[in-house]
Amino acid sequence: MSTSTVHTLGELADLLEVRLVGDPSILITGLATLKSAVPGQLSFLSNPRYSSHLGQCRASAVIVEAEHASACQAAQLISSTPYVTYARASQLFAAARRPASGIHPTAIIASDVHLAAEVSIAAHVVIESGVRIGTGSVIGAGSYIGADSTLGEHCILYPNVTIYQGVAIGNRVVLHSSVVIGADGFGFAFDGRRSVKIAQLGGVKIGDDVEIGAGTTVDRGALDDTIIAHGVKIDNQVQIAHNCIIGEHTIICGCSAIAGSTSIGRYCTIGGGVGVIGHLQIADKVMISAMSLVSQSISEAGIYSSGTGLLESKEWKRNIVRFRQLDDMAKRLRELEKLAQGRLAAPGDSV
Amino acid sequence: MSTSTVHTLGELADLLEVRLVGDPSILITGLATLKSAVPGQLSFLSNPRYSSHLGQCRASAVIVEAEHASACQAAQLISSTPYVTYARASQLFAAARRPASGIHPTAIIASDVHLAAEVSIAAHVVIESGVRIGTGSVIGAGSYIGADSTLGEHCILYPNVTIYQGVAIGNRVVLHSSVVIGADGFGFAFDGRRSVKIAQLGGVKIGDDVEIGAGTTVDRGALDDTIIAHGVKIDNQVQIAHNCIIGEHTIICGCSAIAGSTSIGRYCTIGGGVGVIGHLQIADKVMISAMSLVSQSISEAGIYSSGTGLLESKEWKRNIVRFRQLDDMAKRLRELEKLAQGRLAAPGDSV
Amino acid sequence: MSTSTVHTLGELADLLEVRLVGDPSILITGLATLKSAVPGQLSFLSNPRYSSHLGQCRASAVIVEAEHASACQAAQLISSTPYVTYARASQLFAAARRPASGIHPTAIIASDVHLAAEVSIAAHVVIESGVRIGTGSVIGAGSYIGADSTLGEHCILYPNVTIYQGVAIGNRVVLHSSVVIGADGFGFAFDGRRSVKIAQLGGVKIGDDVEIGAGTTVDRGALDDTIIAHGVKIDNQVQIAHNCIIGEHTIICGCSAIAGSTSIGRYCTIGGGVGVIGHLQIADKVMISAMSLVSQSISEAGIYSSGTGLLESKEWKRNIVRFRQLDDMAKRLRELEKLAQGRLAAPGDSV
Repeated sequence: MSTSTVHTLGELADLLEVRLVGDPSILITGLATLKSAVPGQLSFLSNPRYSSHLGQCRASAVIVEAEHASACQAAQLISSTPYVTYARASQLFAAARRPASGIHPTAIIASDVHLAAEVSIAAHVVIESGVRIGTGSVIGAGSYIGADSTLGEHCILYPNVTIYQGVAIGNRVVLHSSVVIGADGFGFAFDGRRSVKIAQLGGVKIGDDVEIGAGTTVDRGALDDTIIAHGVKIDNQVQIAHNCIIGEHTIICGCSAIAGSTSIGRYCTIGGGVGVIGHLQIADKVMISAMSLVSQSISEAGIYSSGTGLLESKEWKRNIVRFRQLDDMAKRLRELEKLAQGRLAAPGDSV
Repeated sequence: MSTSTVHTLGELADLLEVRLVGDPSILITGLATLKSAVPGQLSFLSNPRYSSHLGQCRASAVIVEAEHASACQAAQLISSTPYVTYARASQLFAAARRPASGIHPTAIIASDVHLAAEVSIAAHVVIESGVRIGTGSVIGAGSYIGADSTLGEHCILYPNVTIYQGVAIGNRVVLHSSVVIGADGFGFAFDGRRSVKIAQLGGVKIGDDVEIGAGTTVDRGALDDTIIAHGVKIDNQVQIAHNCIIGEHTIICGCSAIAGSTSIGRYCTIGGGVGVIGHLQIADKVMISAMSLVSQSISEAGIYSSGTGLLESKEWKRNIVRFRQLDDMAKRLRELEKLAQGRLAAPGDSV
Repeated sequence: MSTSTVHTLGELADLLEVRLVGDPSILITGLATLKSAVPGQLSFLSNPRYSSHLGQCRASAVIVEAEHASACQAAQLISSTPYVTYARASQLFAAARRPASGIHPTAIIASDVHLAAEVSIAAHVVIESGVRIGTGSVIGAGSYIGADSTLGEHCILYPNVTIYQGVAIGNRVVLHSSVVIGADGFGFAFDGRRSVKIAQLGGVKIGDDVEIGAGTTVDRGALDDTIIAHGVKIDNQVQIAHNCIIGEHTIICGCSAIAGSTSIGRYCTIGGGVGVIGHLQIADKVMISAMSLVSQSISEAGIYSSGTGLLESKEWKRNIVRFRQLDDMAKRLRELEKLAQGRLAAPGDSV
């Protein structure tokens, strides 16, 4: 996708606060990978594995660490953290997309809603009574904001987002399409015959600088609130159940599910498709690998996994049969060891 | 979240049909956990593990079993099933949220739609020809109901729900935002070169008192209907494929997926992130633990699981390598046992 | 669900290009399974396991292979591929559902949008500047199409679909409700303190004859595009991350997730609930069984699986404990074997 943003290389060096080696008047119209870049584009080297691509790269400039600068034909933006500099540069080339401020005439907004300056409200949006929206926030078409919810400054709701009543959202929060915040937590009391609904009387609190991917759901609390702390980034189709607490700057990859009342620490990375059962405590800086099931609390930072490796199905079936015999195998092994010790061990043996 | 509902303790005892020990004129403004409750609030003890909190609890009243009553400082609502009583109480404090009856002027409703009394239809709703909606049902903003679908009495559709054509929904059904009912089942016939679409000509039937969580999808049947029986409760982001039958009062936790033509019995509990493959029969009262894969029919009530436990990744990697050698290990173990029997067994040995 | 379409058997034989054995004037009003069909309906036998049902089948006609024709009481449509013929027939009975062409007055369409002939745009749709929509395409109620996106001919967007800006979609593409195409890929650069957003500047390209199920999300690329090739069929609640390439005619079942920059070949079948980690290459004609984790590239066609089989929880717990001891067990087994070789092996032994 092309955008119409253009920067000189000199401007980029200033905006990104990095040193330029090369002609500051070169015009940069976009970003591209080392392999696909053409003249007029800026590229970057963050993984040294690709340093051999620098020689052939056709970009007009490359973001690199000082040690790789000499390998470039193009101009260089010298950064000690090229991936972070690339991230910042990408924002400069995306900036043109914000819609104009103003309220579309088809939006239905309750009379007591408080809208701060420079808010943009698209077509067919519905905003209920008591809502407050901060300066510069953008509400995409067809989105719904329930009564008494609050949105901070410079938030972006993409089209067709749903926020239930009583949800408090911080500043610079991004919610992608089909996100649902504040639906009822899944709570029922079984009376021996049927499930009696537990009304979910808590809310949801979302901190600043949180981004939540398309189709993700964050349920409201049963009594207390569900909490997503500052800086948390959540990918698509993640489920956060009622009364979870997700610590600051934690990252949750796509299709993971965190069951009710579980607390996850700060700076954790939850891989894709992970399940975390309810009422657990996960420490700070824990990494969970993809599709693991976390079935007990984790008190130490570290990397954790579950599951079996992928095998050709024929081989997998052979081994899976043995998995069911594992306990039996372990016992038979122990028997043999005892036998070996009794019958075979000779004086001096270390067995 | 605070709600403005207030009840006297005497009223609550009457409404909940439990015995009050204490002053019936005490005003109760909401519910809270034993730990966070403040005066004016009602709490509950359902898990005896927390009985030690009763002494310090600041709530004005507590729902407890008779045996724990003496440990309370506060007034008591005596119940043999405190969790169920709490569930019922929670509904009393949530009751204030129902929107007013009436049809928003921006709703687009076909001329032959039949709306019973006291229906509430929010902004930007679209209801197609032939739809029938029962007394007291609430259709949230931006929701869509396809042609010839029917909704019973006192249903709640939260905003941005989509119901395709020809879906029959019972009474007191709750559908949360981004739910999709009646999309095409995933059916294709491969002709050797490409997948030929099998039009999904069946419908979906949903019984009474069903609740379906945000983002959950229930597909229409290929020829016959997909059926969700009375009292079923389904959490967020669950996928129910075409021609499934989910038995009465079964509970399905978040992010589970039931593949096509599978029947699940009554009073089952399907944990979160579970997968059930197609064309299976699951008996009544089966419990499946979180993230298990059900790959064969289950004919007996009981608890079933699959997967491996969570380990630190370093330890996990060591064991996962051995999983691939399991069949080989089992055979070598058997060889050793034969050897041991032949060489070691002495007369009288029980080996 | 009944539809009002009626065909004579003679017409059906012509339209399906199969041979009719029986009265061409028989009226067929719909399709049904062998077991549930009644007079006036057409059924089919594709799985020989059900051939015993042919005798009792009450359908007016049955699609069968020639070898089973003699077992039928009813008229026969003789096909060498009955399942494919059934698929084609199902489309004939579904055809009546397309809404009338035209633009609903509540749709908000930018002035420079290009709409080809016979387009149908439902209520509360929003279409942004620069969009192009091909002949005969249908846009369901409440759907959103972002700036500069293009849609080919005869596409169907069901209600409440969201397409971000700069997405290119081919011909005859079907997108079910709550699908989100082109949301930001999940890309952040960690600067040691917080996650810096990587603007997602790529787009999404979707080929011809693609169908995407309810609630599925396909993210836009970081720099290059995410690509879904011709003929791909994707079930509900699937997540396709940024810069994935899904090869022609591949099938992805419900609730699977493909992480970023992974390429999947042509004619693959990805089972339900599968996870594929990022930056992998999967060959053509690979089948992955349900709920497997694909953690490395696959270079050969074949069937692949991971996970453990389902067990009763008590038995599962016994074995899962041993899984943690597997590496230890393998070493102890090796020790015993060495011991057995040293102490037991006699001249001439094959051990």
